[in-house]
Amino acid sequence: MKNIAIAVHGGAGQDSEFIRMNQIAYKAGLVKAVNTGYETLKQGGSALDAVENAVRLMEDNPIFNSARGSALNAKGEVEMDASIMDGSKHSAGAVSIVRNVKNPVTLARFIMENTSHVFISGYGALEIAKENNLELEVDSYFITEHRVDELIKERMDDTDDIKRKRKNGTVGAVALDNAGNIAAATSTGGTSNCLSGRIGDSCIIGAGCFANNSSCAVSGTGDGELLITNVIAHSIAFYMELKNCSVQEACDYVIHQRNKDVEGDIGVIALDAMGNFGISYNSQRMLRAWKMNEEIVTVKIYK
Amino acid sequence: MKNIAIAVHGGAGQDSEFIRMNQIAYKAGLVKAVNTGYETLKQGGSALDAVENAVRLMEDNPIFNSARGSALNAKGEVEMDASIMDGSKHSAGAVSIVRNVKNPVTLARFIMENTSHVFISGYGALEIAKENNLELEVDSYFITEHRVDELIKERMDDTDDIKRKRKNGTVGAVALDNAGNIAAATSTGGTSNCLSGRIGDSCIIGAGCFANNSSCAVSGTGDGELLITNVIAHSIAFYMELKNCSVQEACDYVIHQRNKDVEGDIGVIALDAMGNFGISYNSQRMLRAWKMNEEIVTVKIYK
Repeated sequence: MKNIAIAVHGGAGQDSEFIRMNQIAYKAGLVKAVNTGYETLKQGGSALDAVENAVRLMEDNPIFNSARGSALNAKGEVEMDASIMDGSKHSAGAVSIVRNVKNPVTLARFIMENTSHVFISGYGALEIAKENNLELEVDSYFITEHRVDELIKERMDDTDDIKRKRKNGTVGAVALDNAGNIAAATSTGGTSNCLSGRIGDSCIIGAGCFANNSSCAVSGTGDGELLITNVIAHSIAFYMELKNCSVQEACDYVIHQRNKDVEGDIGVIALDAMGNFGISYNSQRMLRAWKMNEEIVTVKIYK
Repeated sequence: MKNIAIAVHGGAGQDSEFIRMNQIAYKAGLVKAVNTGYETLKQGGSALDAVENAVRLMEDNPIFNSARGSALNAKGEVEMDASIMDGSKHSAGAVSIVRNVKNPVTLARFIMENTSHVFISGYGALEIAKENNLELEVDSYFITEHRVDELIKERMDDTDDIKRKRKNGTVGAVALDNAGNIAAATSTGGTSNCLSGRIGDSCIIGAGCFANNSSCAVSGTGDGELLITNVIAHSIAFYMELKNCSVQEACDYVIHQRNKDVEGDIGVIALDAMGNFGISYNSQRMLRAWKMNEEIVTVKIYK
């Protein structure tokens, strides 16, 4: 039997009282996502199916910052970004600042598979979801008490805008199927109290999502702007391709060497087509879980 | 005296009767953009100023597909993308699907320099332009007769959506200033008859724009979806960084080797911090011009 494997993350960043108090719920959510994706792979599903299913589960879980439970922007609105990439075909789909779509990752996949485009934003993306009967939800579905409290605290914070550590968060998954194909997916509700229209790394192919069978699949998290300007996900895959090193070495090089001086949080989960994981982050915590073949799920929040 | 240099492009793609008939106007527009950017550099302006000024000139010129003269989407609307990156600070700004902003590249720079974000889309980006008194224009300012004719022809074309060669186009610039800093900027009106909300490579850091003093500045053009999934601009810069090769070798590797099998058009202009240019494209034409120190401008459309 060939290797099958999946890893998920629920965001990298600063530690918080909320996370410490809700460790059980976070770990349960991560394990459920891994097991769901793994079950897809075990039943012969593709890596693409597995990452989509795992991310959908976290999008539906209000404890994570994606879809239901999304961070609120400065206007108190939910604007969601997501992306997915198929390492076998080197094709991708992405959406940004979408509203009311229950599962942005599924819309990203729909765009990848049914249009000649990769990336569709805003009302155009919502129209595609409506015309093709993807599940929609009312605004209130996405908004949780925790995110409202977070926004209120952010608004009271008078730290200089540039220096302020915003609460962010992301979910993502990487998977390997029994045909030897890999895929990655990432989804986010963005950053609390950000400007309306702000797009982070989660929908940017090369920044928060990348997959190529010949190197690896990567899902990123952390301070989105840093992942964009440093093109984190592609750096890992391309470093691995050019240096012919392991996926863990590529992750460590990009996070701990090339970008060791960045002021902010970066974290990644990665997986190659042999089933080797790469996990690196420079932050206080990264919510993560992974499973290969019939091993027990490993789940961690801190070191 | 240290080297100063600038290159601009006005898009890579298939040849067309319109381009053949308007070679003089295209070449004049490219030369004017190079000379304007060069004058900025000569007067001690930064590479960032030079690329912004050169791109603004092409945005204002209705013959190019950016700002005035933008391609029209399937609804007959103008939605513009742009980005800018400072190779000295490794900071970037980008906007997507903006309307009514006379110079999207200037809005991208404003976001880079005045917000904690990199990338802002749609109405949020327009709000920033309005609140900060950036120049706005009415819808009709952006729409030219040529682009209306193009959309009508596209709508009559019953070629399968995936196979159809859409008319696209971009403008971009890379520059080196006398402080030894490099920068890149890219701007586009998108693709004729595309879906509303479609985002191309021109606003994606890593795809259609990238700059890092330690490697090179790159502005890309061609089929946006291919530049996104193959992370073209970052591939060139990172290959140069890891292989310690020339910028021309890096461009040739990425366009003619790594991506030799892609079905579509890709073109790039690049420049390193010593003043070496890299120019590669796989298409029938790429509108381009460049100038270093007091040399005469070189301007080309075909090989």
